[in-house]
Amino acid sequence: VQDLPKRSMACSRFEYVKSFEQDDSILPNVWIVIRIDGKKFHKFSKAHDFEKPNDENGTLNVMNAAATAVMQEFRDIVLAYGQSDEYSFVFRKETASFKRRSAKLLTYVTSLFSTSYVMQWSKWMNLPLAYAPCFDGRVVLYPSEQNLKDYLSWRQADVHVNNLYNTAFWKLVLEKGLTNQEAEAKLRGTFSADKNELLFQEFGINYNNLPAMYRKGTILLRKRVILGDKSRQAIVPLHEDLISSQFWKQHTEILGKYV
Amino acid sequence: VQDLPKRSMACSRFEYVKSFEQDDSILPNVWIVIRIDGKKFHKFSKAHDFEKPNDENGTLNVMNAAATAVMQEFRDIVLAYGQSDEYSFVFRKETASFKRRSAKLLTYVTSLFSTSYVMQWSKWMNLPLAYAPCFDGRVVLYPSEQNLKDYLSWRQADVHVNNLYNTAFWKLVLEKGLTNQEAEAKLRGTFSADKNELLFQEFGINYNNLPAMYRKGTILLRKRVILGDKSRQAIVPLHEDLISSQFWKQHTEILGKYV
Amino acid sequence: VQDLPKRSMACSRFEYVKSFEQDDSILPNVWIVIRIDGKKFHKFSKAHDFEKPNDENGTLNVMNAAATAVMQEFRDIVLAYGQSDEYSFVFRKETASFKRRSAKLLTYVTSLFSTSYVMQWSKWMNLPLAYAPCFDGRVVLYPSEQNLKDYLSWRQADVHVNNLYNTAFWKLVLEKGLTNQEAEAKLRGTFSADKNELLFQEFGINYNNLPAMYRKGTILLRKRVILGDKSRQAIVPLHEDLISSQFWKQHTEILGKYV
Amino acid sequence: VQDLPKRSMACSRFEYVKSFEQDDSILPNVWIVIRIDGKKFHKFSKAHDFEKPNDENGTLNVMNAAATAVMQEFRDIVLAYGQSDEYSFVFRKETASFKRRSAKLLTYVTSLFSTSYVMQWSKWMNLPLAYAPCFDGRVVLYPSEQNLKDYLSWRQADVHVNNLYNTAFWKLVLEKGLTNQEAEAKLRGTFSADKNELLFQEFGINYNNLPAMYRKGTILLRKRVILGDKSRQAIVPLHEDLISSQFWKQHTEILGKYV
Repeated sequence: VQDLPKRSMACSRFEYVKSFEQDDSILPNVWIVIRIDGKKFHKFSKAHDFEKPNDENGTLNVMNAAATAVMQEFRDIVLAYGQSDEYSFVFRKETASFKRRSAKLLTYVTSLFSTSYVMQWSKWMNLPLAYAPCFDGRVVLYPSEQNLKDYLSWRQADVHVNNLYNTAFWKLVLEKGLTNQEAEAKLRGTFSADKNELLFQEFGINYNNLPAMYRKGTILLRKRVILGDKSRQAIVPLHEDLISSQFWKQHTEILGKYV
Repeated sequence: VQDLPKRSMACSRFEYVKSFEQDDSILPNVWIVIRIDGKKFHKFSKAHDFEKPNDENGTLNVMNAAATAVMQEFRDIVLAYGQSDEYSFVFRKETASFKRRSAKLLTYVTSLFSTSYVMQWSKWMNLPLAYAPCFDGRVVLYPSEQNLKDYLSWRQADVHVNNLYNTAFWKLVLEKGLTNQEAEAKLRGTFSADKNELLFQEFGINYNNLPAMYRKGTILLRKRVILGDKSRQAIVPLHEDLISSQFWKQHTEILGKYV
Repeated sequence: VQDLPKRSMACSRFEYVKSFEQDDSILPNVWIVIRIDGKKFHKFSKAHDFEKPNDENGTLNVMNAAATAVMQEFRDIVLAYGQSDEYSFVFRKETASFKRRSAKLLTYVTSLFSTSYVMQWSKWMNLPLAYAPCFDGRVVLYPSEQNLKDYLSWRQADVHVNNLYNTAFWKLVLEKGLTNQEAEAKLRGTFSADKNELLFQEFGINYNNLPAMYRKGTILLRKRVILGDKSRQAIVPLHEDLISSQFWKQHTEILGKYV
Repeated sequence: VQDLPKRSMACSRFEYVKSFEQDDSILPNVWIVIRIDGKKFHKFSKAHDFEKPNDENGTLNVMNAAATAVMQEFRDIVLAYGQSDEYSFVFRKETASFKRRSAKLLTYVTSLFSTSYVMQWSKWMNLPLAYAPCFDGRVVLYPSEQNLKDYLSWRQADVHVNNLYNTAFWKLVLEKGLTNQEAEAKLRGTFSADKNELLFQEFGINYNNLPAMYRKGTILLRKRVILGDKSRQAIVPLHEDLISSQFWKQHTEILGKYV
């Protein structure tokens, strides 16, 4: 906490150590992606003795709320995408936030996401946090729009593969009484089509009818919305297919100069 | 959350984007310091309408508790030093934690500190958190023991300068009824000796008798302690002068090969 | 020189030092520009007691020959641009040469340019090299085609400003008998149009009729040429205006996937 | 070549590209080692049809002369060590040369070494250079004296392993008439002691009596020498064992504050 007028630092004998800080400014004109991942969230899940897969899906709301808080604070984030225990934040290519210093951007996003996660928890979950959760973060740079779209597609393809598997797995365990090992063995080597078929034949489930948030993850965008008789900007959650070109045609502001 | 057996990722068309992640391993054999700073804690302070300077000092306990949680989790931190809204964590020179990857170390420490801060808040403060706080973090490398000692001395000299000023400032404002501007004007250009004299002459305060935590900050060390009839390792807070060589002679384990 | 079969290195006690080498791979999908600059070529010029500005222009041929040698060796360089004592080499965006390791690319280009410069010297110059010349090199990354074109335009605009000045300066000194100081004073604060006018009025010189190599620098491109009755690839020098969009329309292979 | 008074650059539209240059200053207080390696010197060797191993040993003189030129130019190099087609240059820990910018240091050393190699060639070799040689360079940082000594020991242990092998290999080929493959087969799996024994038994050679330059490589140091009746600093070549602590006791100036 700095209450002082800008003062001349005394302590010149030690101040040379400041020169050991190294410049980490990010190359101009590239998309800056910051991805946050839960540390050992499998263990975190177990510690809370979640009912599968519903409680785990409940935590997605906490993730989304935390990510929304991050987007509200850092105006140069044009899109966020979350699934499972991870969230990616995309800063517009031209951002000058914090002089594009890598560690500043990385730690502000990671820290605010982390504290917001804790503060949002009780709004969405019935049980208290067992312990302080922890997230890691990384910075990845993408020079072209295609690279950026492919990055996001990579993450969305990942949630599809994982969620289809998890859905089938827990059905087998919870409704057919298989052990974890038996369920795993049954699913080993199967393709998406096989698991779709299994869900339909054995459980009467049409996978595509399951909630889109589980199947597609959550995309956060800034949109102008009407509230009462006023229009204002808001963070809007979408659960769409961003792998298709349709998505990018519909939300052209993402790749635009400014939102 | 990963419930799946290690699977071959499908989605090969997009996976090339992973190759854009860049290696950020830290040079071997240097001290790794991670310093965390509160983002706009002056505003944070105001939002809570703290009673000065006591409430603010109360938040030091939250900082210390959060830092203790970080040290308990990351075993290769040999020392932490905190003052005001900042905390520095020193990893031993030989650490191989997270393969010395800079972003991993930086974000794990920043994230766990941040979530612990929120979770510890209510244990130390009577008022609820007004909003989610946010911390930035940076990595600084020091090749020699002398560099590391000088870094920590720099931070401790800083708390001295700041705390002496703040103490005098708030006495003038709260007890003498000066406005902030008047107090600032009165202190402008004064040396430490002048402020010591002012505190003694006008308020009967011997600055050196004020609580060491305010004057010296908090050093966290791992120490073997006796609990009941057992000895175990614990994180111990100290409020000593680490600028003196005496400190380093007394706590030789800090610079040792392992603690 | 390695004559040995790949052997298991003995010396394990020391080999740990190899781990101090840090990865410096360049981000994928960006243009890699390596610019080389003569170290203290003003002094180098003086040491050879060049006749101004002709001899100095003679060294441009040495520069061009050295740059051609570099392009012949490193096939992923799609364009080189030289003026005065500097040369820029542009690697295609997708290059995987030397795994995009920054120091490898940088030093191979700098070293081969340097040795070629020395070996080419006697083919173009009548006087021997006074001493071993030295060049520095730097790597700069450009994410977009526009950035790359602007970089090259920046260098070509630079040669225009410099060469117009130098031409006027040496005319004033050599033909009007002004001292260096007088010539400098006369040109101070003048615009391009003024210098063009001065050359025309006082020396009857139409600047635009001077050799293009002096006015525009040298662009090296790979082109398919006819030699006898065969077509083969060659490095072709051009002295065109690359600031205009015309240039890029005419040489589309530069920005293409491969040459 | 810059003949102009420091002028305000016109071309502001393009100058933004300069901001893409990234800071690469090296961490303070670490030893900076720059190692240069001949690119494909096996092929280079063949192109000159060297008489083995003598001619190749002749090129060591060219290497040493080039390295001496580098040390004469860059005063903060305290030691250079060369063997085979490589040379390492050690800048003192505190050097502020070129603001410790990595690419500047790396390319100046690599470039001057390269041009000096070409210019020195004819002084030491009877045949002309077949083509422009090329060297790569890398920067490696060592925080402690022990790390630095171990680095140099690593390189010297390497020359021992290689030279002993090469000596035995060429003796077998040139004097016993073995083919390269037969010689290789005969030496495969042998230890140093075996090769020493072979040289002694079959060729009457005591390996330790061979010239130290081949066995130990070349160490260049700055030493005060007497020339006529004056004392001046010179670059002195040594062929000593630098793995032993004796070497470091004898040449304490290397690790000193300044030479």
